[in-house]
Amino acid sequence: MPRRDQATELRVIPIRGMGEIFAGDSVAEAIVTGLRRQRLNLQRGDILAIKHKIVSKAEAQMVVLERVQPSPAAKRWAARYGLDAPVVHLAEQQARRVVRRKRGVIITETRHGLVCANSGVDVSNVDGGRCAVLLPADPDRSAREIQKTIAKKLRVSVPVLITDSFGRAWREGLTEVAIGLAGMKPFRDYRGRRDAYGYRLRASLEAVADELACMAGLACGKLSQSAACIVRGFPYGSGRGNARSLIRPKERDLFR
Amino acid sequence: MPRRDQATELRVIPIRGMGEIFAGDSVAEAIVTGLRRQRLNLQRGDILAIKHKIVSKAEAQMVVLERVQPSPAAKRWAARYGLDAPVVHLAEQQARRVVRRKRGVIITETRHGLVCANSGVDVSNVDGGRCAVLLPADPDRSAREIQKTIAKKLRVSVPVLITDSFGRAWREGLTEVAIGLAGMKPFRDYRGRRDAYGYRLRASLEAVADELACMAGLACGKLSQSAACIVRGFPYGSGRGNARSLIRPKERDLFR
Repeated sequence: MPRRDQATELRVIPIRGMGEIFAGDSVAEAIVTGLRRQRLNLQRGDILAIKHKIVSKAEAQMVVLERVQPSPAAKRWAARYGLDAPVVHLAEQQARRVVRRKRGVIITETRHGLVCANSGVDVSNVDGGRCAVLLPADPDRSAREIQKTIAKKLRVSVPVLITDSFGRAWREGLTEVAIGLAGMKPFRDYRGRRDAYGYRLRASLEAVADELACMAGLACGKLSQSAACIVRGFPYGSGRGNARSLIRPKERDLFR
Repeated sequence: MPRRDQATELRVIPIRGMGEIFAGDSVAEAIVTGLRRQRLNLQRGDILAIKHKIVSKAEAQMVVLERVQPSPAAKRWAARYGLDAPVVHLAEQQARRVVRRKRGVIITETRHGLVCANSGVDVSNVDGGRCAVLLPADPDRSAREIQKTIAKKLRVSVPVLITDSFGRAWREGLTEVAIGLAGMKPFRDYRGRRDAYGYRLRASLEAVADELACMAGLACGKLSQSAACIVRGFPYGSGRGNARSLIRPKERDLFR
């Protein structure tokens, strides 16, 4: 593994040929299949990044939209902004609380604590609009399970990142974030260390798991068939870690 | 250049050997020097990502902290939270308005419109604590100028990204964002396109410039001496573009 903090070349390699994932499938096995078809070796030091959608599909975190009975409030909101009432209803149902609701946008805090639009409920890249996909019930646990299965099958244990694309406050567009993580530290912590000039760094906690998610997001475009990729060359902090710790606790958040 | 949306391998290669940058230096020339020392060729299709700090230094966007006369309010705030009064004063001075001020944290909107902590005023990686570095006056212009000079010197025109690390709402840790940009589109726009299942994508505007910034942030650690890197293999949308359009207008922002 490259030495930490040393500027090294990084690579991100999309994994293709995983085939379509259905409820009950093993994401880990699909990844192993993709790697074999591509003659790609998973190496010590690699990080595996996986779009949450295939994890949700495998875990059957899906809802048939036709069967959703939207509440009157969801219907009104949907009609007012030209949205899909069952999707609005699901977004509300999946929320612990609504953070903002304005001009057709619903920002919620999911039961995982994640703050995002529509509680992460999504109908793109599912099956053409019949089903909605929810977030995995416990993305950190999903990451741990995938890590374990991959380690068993390939005899190499690599960190696993599960990602979704979220909007942000203040900035336009979506970026990929880590919603599940296993096998590495989510942060690079510079606090208390000294820079090249001897100055002691203060507020420097880098959310590398989210930056890795972004890197994966670039390689696995929304319209490509690649739902997972390998990040190679990043000197991650090994040890336990989860994506839950990337969520700022409400009481320390100035924008909730 | 790789075809857009095709899942391709991406690489990020740190540029070393640029030497230290002082006021009046040319960042473009330093990059050319670094590339030559490393025997690295800049290729068509590459993207150049540069940490804003060396751009600010070259543009003399620095303030000697000893010469700053902090306001009484800045002194009180600094004393209360164990901060540096001149830095607090500069943060206020560089702000168009304060977005939040709580528990020692000051989130401002800079005169560029960027929302970040302390108006981006920073004392790390400068000179050991004597000077503070401000953001470049016009980072998009800086990016255009660097792009032009590099194109003249190396006869290859590549997009230029200028980055800084910002905190976020709702999530812990800093991630790198694009504050200046030239030569490419900052977004990948999926709106109206159909996914593999024929479903028409709606709210899918991907902030690739910020994701590229994150990728660069991973390769150029805060403690490494690499302040620039090449991103290779990303099928960016060519054309004009700037980082200003990544800033959500205040009137469309639910969190300002």
